[in-house]
Amino acid sequence: MPQQYLNQVLPIFSWIKHYTRKNVADDFMAGSIVAIILIPQSMAYAMLAGLPPQLGLYSSVVPLMLYTFFGSSRALAVGPVGLVSLMTGATLIKLAPQNEQEVINISVTLALMTGIILLAIRAAKLSAITKFLSHPVMSGFTSAAAIMIMLSQVKHLIGIDLPSDPNALITIGSIFEHLSQANIAALFIGFSGITLLLYIRKPLGLFLKSKGIGTPASRNALSRCGPFFLAVIGIVFTWLLSLHEVFALSIVGAIPSGLPGLSLPQTQWSLIIQLLPSALLIAIIGFFESVSVAKSLASRKRERINADQEALALGVANIGASFSSGMPVAGGFARSIVNFSSGATSPMSGFISGLFVAFSLLFLLDIIYYLPRAILAAIICVAVTGLIDWRAMHEAWVYNKADAAALIITFVCVLVFGIEPGILAGVLYSIGQYLHRSSKPHIAVVGRVGNSEHYRNIERHQVMTHEKILLLRIDESLYFANTNYLEVNMINLIADNPKVSDVVIICSAVNFIDTSAIQSLETIAFLLKKANIKLHYAEIKGPIMDRLIKSNVIENICTGNIFLSTHDAMLELTDTIETRNKPKAAA
Amino acid sequence: MPQQYLNQVLPIFSWIKHYTRKNVADDFMAGSIVAIILIPQSMAYAMLAGLPPQLGLYSSVVPLMLYTFFGSSRALAVGPVGLVSLMTGATLIKLAPQNEQEVINISVTLALMTGIILLAIRAAKLSAITKFLSHPVMSGFTSAAAIMIMLSQVKHLIGIDLPSDPNALITIGSIFEHLSQANIAALFIGFSGITLLLYIRKPLGLFLKSKGIGTPASRNALSRCGPFFLAVIGIVFTWLLSLHEVFALSIVGAIPSGLPGLSLPQTQWSLIIQLLPSALLIAIIGFFESVSVAKSLASRKRERINADQEALALGVANIGASFSSGMPVAGGFARSIVNFSSGATSPMSGFISGLFVAFSLLFLLDIIYYLPRAILAAIICVAVTGLIDWRAMHEAWVYNKADAAALIITFVCVLVFGIEPGILAGVLYSIGQYLHRSSKPHIAVVGRVGNSEHYRNIERHQVMTHEKILLLRIDESLYFANTNYLEVNMINLIADNPKVSDVVIICSAVNFIDTSAIQSLETIAFLLKKANIKLHYAEIKGPIMDRLIKSNVIENICTGNIFLSTHDAMLELTDTIETRNKPKAAA
Repeated sequence: MPQQYLNQVLPIFSWIKHYTRKNVADDFMAGSIVAIILIPQSMAYAMLAGLPPQLGLYSSVVPLMLYTFFGSSRALAVGPVGLVSLMTGATLIKLAPQNEQEVINISVTLALMTGIILLAIRAAKLSAITKFLSHPVMSGFTSAAAIMIMLSQVKHLIGIDLPSDPNALITIGSIFEHLSQANIAALFIGFSGITLLLYIRKPLGLFLKSKGIGTPASRNALSRCGPFFLAVIGIVFTWLLSLHEVFALSIVGAIPSGLPGLSLPQTQWSLIIQLLPSALLIAIIGFFESVSVAKSLASRKRERINADQEALALGVANIGASFSSGMPVAGGFARSIVNFSSGATSPMSGFISGLFVAFSLLFLLDIIYYLPRAILAAIICVAVTGLIDWRAMHEAWVYNKADAAALIITFVCVLVFGIEPGILAGVLYSIGQYLHRSSKPHIAVVGRVGNSEHYRNIERHQVMTHEKILLLRIDESLYFANTNYLEVNMINLIADNPKVSDVVIICSAVNFIDTSAIQSLETIAFLLKKANIKLHYAEIKGPIMDRLIKSNVIENICTGNIFLSTHDAMLELTDTIETRNKPKAAA
Repeated sequence: MPQQYLNQVLPIFSWIKHYTRKNVADDFMAGSIVAIILIPQSMAYAMLAGLPPQLGLYSSVVPLMLYTFFGSSRALAVGPVGLVSLMTGATLIKLAPQNEQEVINISVTLALMTGIILLAIRAAKLSAITKFLSHPVMSGFTSAAAIMIMLSQVKHLIGIDLPSDPNALITIGSIFEHLSQANIAALFIGFSGITLLLYIRKPLGLFLKSKGIGTPASRNALSRCGPFFLAVIGIVFTWLLSLHEVFALSIVGAIPSGLPGLSLPQTQWSLIIQLLPSALLIAIIGFFESVSVAKSLASRKRERINADQEALALGVANIGASFSSGMPVAGGFARSIVNFSSGATSPMSGFISGLFVAFSLLFLLDIIYYLPRAILAAIICVAVTGLIDWRAMHEAWVYNKADAAALIITFVCVLVFGIEPGILAGVLYSIGQYLHRSSKPHIAVVGRVGNSEHYRNIERHQVMTHEKILLLRIDESLYFANTNYLEVNMINLIADNPKVSDVVIICSAVNFIDTSAIQSLETIAFLLKKANIKLHYAEIKGPIMDRLIKSNVIENICTGNIFLSTHDAMLELTDTIETRNKPKAAA
């Protein structure tokens, strides 16, 4: 029993038994490649969040090691990521901390709360909470976030200290205002860096191939290590030419050497309450992003991701980040792909990455000292270009304008009003759109297709109908928001067909009938009865039929029969009408 | 053209042409009976709202006359009503006016805003806004309102001046606290009044019948005039025995004589902004109640109510109430039934009622002076007993526990937190419930029923299946909230059927597929392809098919065919599978 429980909570106990020397080698390779990207990236994301760069490095040690024990995805690379760092930064700006100690305090509290919220999501099995983040909303948000992230990096790229502002337009304004004070060295290094990162991948891959270095997958992964090479080049040049002294180039500078101490986060209730909305959103968005990435990578190898387990693992990772003076973490898109394509076979590769980051914290800080901030900014800018999802925008636009509207609303609101209001607007719009759509159900008059038992819309298909029988297919569950529409439209349809003596409501697309709709159907049945029209039903689904029988409302809503299929209804009613008319004909 | 336009805006021009002397007589009878109930009731509702009694009378003159011109219902009796008066009272308590002038000022401003909002609803054709007030929510609200109204009248019934409080529990508490100071005369008169009203209707009807007075309908209407007789009895006894002096019985007292002057309401912007949420809710609830009543009465005579026209008519009536120093009005349930069953043939009966109220304002105030407030309280208490909808509660409970929960939540929240939060909680719960339900769609595996072309759930019907073909019917539109559930459950179902080579998704109950769902279907198609399983579709509806074709996504979501009917799919796939297997058998 305890063994089973352990296996469930700590997936490592399941896979470690089958862990071979080959696995060690593969994970070491993948873990070290990820670390090479992670070291500069994690500092860059800390800067993005407005935190000292070492917090990014701290968040890339303990959380990664903890994820190795709790995670269910063998490819997910945990650590500081763009969206979460952006949200952390937005929260910091709102709280306006006075000194570095306060900044760090907010960061560790936010990581702690994010972790606890994720554990709560796991405990309450609420991982479905992310389902209200529809694709268009997430797509609009990430695209807007990418733009916000890039804008926030401009100050490093041009070497000026601009105040951060969550409103994109204000940021753009202040960039133009201060453009003339740009630092030439930063500008040159930053934009050469971006150009290199954007265009080095293909030639580097080809170069490695021509030299026969590595497998195709590892070559592909290595060619993604541009950020590392760029950082090395930046460090070497800055050190050789003393760019930070000659051109006043902004560099990372002195970072307190050594591993982060493990300590209990010190915080106050008032801060926790202030941070609650942000922590909730960071937890949900971070969770959503991580699960999406893990799922899409797992599906390539036909493996499965357990979303509940991921909530637990990410929760523990965030609490670990908090206890080791870090910032909120999640599973990143780009690094996970590198991890996956470098051949990671288990979460052990994350542990290896963590070890590398720890090593750099112990021994490489004197070198990292010379890393120009403009290069970190260039690394971020290129990393987030992938977040802008042009394809989703185009697809949504072509397929469904309402989804495109949700995307655009989220995108614009995030840029103009901030992250939380923007996402909320997108979610509310999506839900409203869905309700609006279902409140005006499509009602089709159907007829028989040829000699088949199949009935389709008379406006779309060549079908046979009977002048005395009106077959109505209602294409929506019947519930309070559409009862009124239903009443009005059914009455009108019947008024348009004055010869009709029998109406059949076809319920093949009706998945639910609520109490309000029952009352509407009672009204309709009553009105039809007064007009000597019988109301029948066909194809009522099992679960609905059970309810109707249980609550004795059938006689109130149905003045005719209930048929299993539309075809049965058509045959029987045709018979009945003929029998009804015969005596008249004889008289 | 102008004539047509006039007929449309002022329905009176349509019906007045056919108005006969018989109509005059009928409407006079109905109008006078309604006035007899209206005079005491309108004062009682003004008291309920915390307003001087004459405001109730004022609101029963001009608004009724205006409705005659604009209204489309021949039975709706407009004037002060329970729900709206209760909400007006709750608004007054919140604003805590300092003197009577301020009280009146708030009342006329509220009536003006209610009127303007109703006109806006008409102009924007937003009468569908009431659709989110589901039956359970309205039922829970009216039941809670009935209890709040009764509680608010207890102070008059026991003759003590208690402070009004929107929280039902606090009101009950303060009633018990002050019970020992009850006024004996008020107590006696109040409770005898209630008893009389509750039990006089039947005997009175029988008495009139035995004396051969009136038609059955008019006898029924007259027997509802208990409030009038009770008021007369109360006035006579109070005057004869000087109860107000001997027992300090609280009476209506002096009311400024004469008709209300017509004047422009004086108000400030700050007040308008404070009143906006209440005015919105009063407009929507009053409109909802009026249209429900008008519809249910019209349906008895197979007439139609135009909801947009009613918004216009009620809007004009409320603006009229505001200009004649009144309070917000709506169409009342009980009085409309009296009007209907007394034989009203047109909105003219409302005009007659208005004339009677005007007459009483001119000549009867010296008599009304002696009317005990305890009797008005008794009249209200009995009038609102009809608002408690036991049948709806029972029906909802039996038919659908979720609807019952919406009812109970609204009921409890209105009583504990107040009207606006209560209704909001109910509406949000209903919407959440609907979303929750549609986020976990029913997925049925279906098979062929006998030799028919009809396919039903294998768990509910005796059906034939094919071991290599899995027919899945998804009973819900596919949208962002259920894509994840869909993916997980489809994959599991396919895993449970390892021999399957062809999966058919039957879309007869799928009324919409949004962009998020398209991406899920792409994932499912991809996974199935990897497992050598073909994904087909059947019975895709016309509007969905149009979109799929337009946006070129079919090849991504469908690795097999799209069939018109499930039966076609079954026949063709069975053939294909047999052909596929034949060469093997031959080899």
